Amino acid sequence: MSLPAEFHEIAKRVNNWGRWGENDEIGTLNLITDEVVRSAAATIRTGRRVPLALPLHQDGIQTGLIPGRVNPLHAMVQINQELFGPGTVATSDDVVTMGLQAATHWDALTHASHSGRIYNGRPADTVTAHTRARFSGIDKVPYVVSRGVLLDVARAKGLDRLPGDHAVTPEDLEEAADFGGVTVGAGDIVLVRTGQMQLALGGDKHGYGYPSPGLSVRTPAWFHAHDVAAVANDTLTFEIFPPEIEDLWLAVHALDLVEMGMLQGQNWNLESLSTACAQEMRYAFLLSAMPEPFVGGTGTPVAPVAVL
Amino acid sequence: MSLPAEFHEIAKRVNNWGRWGENDEIGTLNLITDEVVRSAAATIRTGRRVPLALPLHQDGIQTGLIPGRVNPLHAMVQINQELFGPGTVATSDDVVTMGLQAATHWDALTHASHSGRIYNGRPADTVTAHTRARFSGIDKVPYVVSRGVLLDVARAKGLDRLPGDHAVTPEDLEEAADFGGVTVGAGDIVLVRTGQMQLALGGDKHGYGYPSPGLSVRTPAWFHAHDVAAVANDTLTFEIFPPEIEDLWLAVHALDLVEMGMLQGQNWNLESLSTACAQEMRYAFLLSAMPEPFVGGTGTPVAPVAVL
Amino acid sequence: MSLPAEFHEIAKRVNNWGRWGENDEIGTLNLITDEVVRSAAATIRTGRRVPLALPLHQDGIQTGLIPGRVNPLHAMVQINQELFGPGTVATSDDVVTMGLQAATHWDALTHASHSGRIYNGRPADTVTAHTRARFSGIDKVPYVVSRGVLLDVARAKGLDRLPGDHAVTPEDLEEAADFGGVTVGAGDIVLVRTGQMQLALGGDKHGYGYPSPGLSVRTPAWFHAHDVAAVANDTLTFEIFPPEIEDLWLAVHALDLVEMGMLQGQNWNLESLSTACAQEMRYAFLLSAMPEPFVGGTGTPVAPVAVL
Amino acid sequence: MSLPAEFHEIAKRVNNWGRWGENDEIGTLNLITDEVVRSAAATIRTGRRVPLALPLHQDGIQTGLIPGRVNPLHAMVQINQELFGPGTVATSDDVVTMGLQAATHWDALTHASHSGRIYNGRPADTVTAHTRARFSGIDKVPYVVSRGVLLDVARAKGLDRLPGDHAVTPEDLEEAADFGGVTVGAGDIVLVRTGQMQLALGGDKHGYGYPSPGLSVRTPAWFHAHDVAAVANDTLTFEIFPPEIEDLWLAVHALDLVEMGMLQGQNWNLESLSTACAQEMRYAFLLSAMPEPFVGGTGTPVAPVAVL
Repeated sequence: MSLPAEFHEIAKRVNNWGRWGENDEIGTLNLITDEVVRSAAATIRTGRRVPLALPLHQDGIQTGLIPGRVNPLHAMVQINQELFGPGTVATSDDVVTMGLQAATHWDALTHASHSGRIYNGRPADTVTAHTRARFSGIDKVPYVVSRGVLLDVARAKGLDRLPGDHAVTPEDLEEAADFGGVTVGAGDIVLVRTGQMQLALGGDKHGYGYPSPGLSVRTPAWFHAHDVAAVANDTLTFEIFPPEIEDLWLAVHALDLVEMGMLQGQNWNLESLSTACAQEMRYAFLLSAMPEPFVGGTGTPVAPVAVL
Repeated sequence: MSLPAEFHEIAKRVNNWGRWGENDEIGTLNLITDEVVRSAAATIRTGRRVPLALPLHQDGIQTGLIPGRVNPLHAMVQINQELFGPGTVATSDDVVTMGLQAATHWDALTHASHSGRIYNGRPADTVTAHTRARFSGIDKVPYVVSRGVLLDVARAKGLDRLPGDHAVTPEDLEEAADFGGVTVGAGDIVLVRTGQMQLALGGDKHGYGYPSPGLSVRTPAWFHAHDVAAVANDTLTFEIFPPEIEDLWLAVHALDLVEMGMLQGQNWNLESLSTACAQEMRYAFLLSAMPEPFVGGTGTPVAPVAVL
Repeated sequence: MSLPAEFHEIAKRVNNWGRWGENDEIGTLNLITDEVVRSAAATIRTGRRVPLALPLHQDGIQTGLIPGRVNPLHAMVQINQELFGPGTVATSDDVVTMGLQAATHWDALTHASHSGRIYNGRPADTVTAHTRARFSGIDKVPYVVSRGVLLDVARAKGLDRLPGDHAVTPEDLEEAADFGGVTVGAGDIVLVRTGQMQLALGGDKHGYGYPSPGLSVRTPAWFHAHDVAAVANDTLTFEIFPPEIEDLWLAVHALDLVEMGMLQGQNWNLESLSTACAQEMRYAFLLSAMPEPFVGGTGTPVAPVAVL
Repeated sequence: MSLPAEFHEIAKRVNNWGRWGENDEIGTLNLITDEVVRSAAATIRTGRRVPLALPLHQDGIQTGLIPGRVNPLHAMVQINQELFGPGTVATSDDVVTMGLQAATHWDALTHASHSGRIYNGRPADTVTAHTRARFSGIDKVPYVVSRGVLLDVARAKGLDRLPGDHAVTPEDLEEAADFGGVTVGAGDIVLVRTGQMQLALGGDKHGYGYPSPGLSVRTPAWFHAHDVAAVANDTLTFEIFPPEIEDLWLAVHALDLVEMGMLQGQNWNLESLSTACAQEMRYAFLLSAMPEPFVGGTGTPVAPVAVL
């Protein structure tokens, strides 16, 4: 079995290998220039901050279906321990074990490969258990601060949430941009809201994961045309799941991460942001969404914040 | 043994219990108002971003001296796995085990207790292995974005780094503020640079930890007087270690976290920021330093970024 | 709320505090003398070995109901890594995170406490996050090798498995001993088979856990009278669950572990052993069930083996 | 670089691929027959038991030199938690994260590969992050109970411990067998004592690991000739380290695990056993050393016990 011609045609159009040099490891994040950050700062009007991360808890959104992607296991190694003797100041310390892709996260560019390649044409086998990702690990991403734009696809359509079989198309993205009165530009980080997160917040973890609305295989070309720096949404799978084209699983991952070199975010809670943007009637803001710099990580938990 | 009268005198002066109501769990973070955030946004001029986190790696700064506070153990659960059949798009997934206070981190207010109490006078035994911190867990901190101010104590004194026995005093902080041309105000997040991080970056982990310059027991009153929201520095212990007053270990932790309810950050890499601020001749910026919202966490890794 | 008089009456009868001195940490394991071990060796006739542990896998028997008691998460840190250069001998290395009580395990005597006490009358707060169990940790148990006796309660009654509401009584144990032609003696390790494990092996993890047959609150007195060294069975909860006496949860744990100081084993797979004993028509054997010596552990995974 | 002719000559002589069929996954463990186990039982005279595992503790023998092979991190998820309400019976639960090869352990046959092959000629790439070892995982080893034989090489030579550059040869093994009055036979588990463990027990972890006496590249042929089932010793590296032949690293691993399919054990504490055997003047016993059945594991902690 191999990937269909249809996939390869899109891949050719959105491919960014070599665009920032053969040594590049961060792809479209190159598009976040100082100028873009200044324009992001200029969007701040009220100073209102909206956090976008889910709580990190053992009772998180993972159901066990994705092997190894465990919810955070949080345990104590010290509780009010008077390390320096009885009656002294005491401290508490905790440890955690978790899948880097288990909660609100960024995929590193190396999270996906196809046909034996990762971003910029490097061999996929440069990801090993020993070094993890030698190239394009999440630690290579020094900062993710830029102008954020919420494309509230569900609200633009007057829906609480998109149906489970809805593939978000470029036309949907345009519609949401119009609804929000924003123009997506180079270096922007685009947040696409489907409303699917409501299922997880309501306790239906299985329903949250499957079936799920998500990005269509046609969206990478749109992101490419707009020189978007990164995209995140409020679903487990990012792309529509099951896929639009039978047996073409994870095509959007392959196009975004491998071909374009564009960071993807998943399980972002965009509900409060949707409310805030609707209240303030503006859909652009400064977004800070710093990866934890795991050396060679193929993903990272992230605690993003929008500053309006 | 009990804490000396000297400690209790300072404690009385800086105590914030009840200041934001008996139900408050976030202390001085209440001081970060929308207005403060707008003023932070106004400091952005060039759009230059400076990340402040150390890489997360098994060969991190922990040496084993603090029991249980382990460097990140990073392992793979999938490597280029074609989950949907041969020839399909492949994914890689990783897991991590780490101490929440092991690398660049925030202490939650519950990281310290004394005399059986945590911030706002709650019983220390509300921290358990089962629930972790029931009150003032790091997940209760919804966002940490504010105006950041670098007080570059080492550079202000013309030193690469402070000697290991230097307790940073209020006078040192004033000197550094004058040097940087900044006035510390309500809601600011203050970053205090000692230069000690150079030892860790140079590979001397033991020297980095001990002896270490750090904040004097006299500084909490200064932070209290200026209504600072949070303080971070570039040392393992935050406060001078060993302490200024014999046998009075972790007094600054107790004053900042328990009495004032002020978030503390440790192991922040302020070297690049020091250079950037010196180059741009300004020491105030927008700082985003979002906690990962571990439910009941007594700390969190953080990947802070300064936007100049 | 406090424990009922009924509980305290039994507790008084089975209590072993001080029986082996005030410094004792291993309770009834003191009953395994060299002589008992010699008699165990004498039971070996065919040399047939029957392992009793469940496989250790992320898809194990835990369902998430017991917070923190996680199935094994198994990940790779090296895969065929040629550490000494290309073409050299390669090695693979793995790491695991798991609950010590998650799979086939022994409870340490410190796994339970009541009324603020653990075995031998020590304060329960000698178990801390810092030291784990200071007394009676699983590392204090140097060896568990003795005569094993299978009391196959289900088979003795002609049942595949006991119903979920069946409390195994002393009379049931007598019946099974008669059925097996064995006399339970001092220092024996008794394995009680209910057949409940068939549910877990058949994939019904929730059914396996609840409701579950298990030992009656009347059995500790029987074990005490026979000077049994340790008891294990093939259920998640060990004792009948929900309990026989309303609201008297975990009474058998408290009697066995705290009062008698008798090691308990859970989630032992006794199905093959049941077949082997029936085939060979003998129910005594040498049993080796060594704890992994986690310092201060309140439990341990165990891979027991019966040698017939 | 490839392995030298010298290596391949020995490999040819000791190779067991196909000996127990092309589907075999356990190698020389096939040699432990019921008859061998009966003869093991017959060695038990006093009933004395000697445990051979090191304590499992964060302050264990690993020094950080082997990446990812972490000492046990042991943390609490419940401490005397009254899960069923105030005043009820309370429980404590703990979790652990550890390298499967970090402490006293068995290497699975898949722990090593060379020239792209594992035991029985299977491709080395059948070990993946997703499945771990598909073949010859440690879970495929159902029981390790057999006759154990201590070859106390150090004591036979009148030494406390062998020097760091001593390669244990077949002649040394013969000498120790003569000293102990034992004949090594088919199915035996051979324990080779160098005394090196004294360094670890005395706190010199680095000295324990390097340089280290250990088995010579000439020993696999001797084990092969005697049809030994498994071999363990009291060193970190099992084989002499650095190796006898320059740049031929881990040759013994490759010969034992890959070519012969013979289980190897490392970091076994043989000090008490050495004393016990010398006191009782006999060097054969029943040995139980059950692997924890990690599915696909390339190693396992083990808590062996010798019954004399």
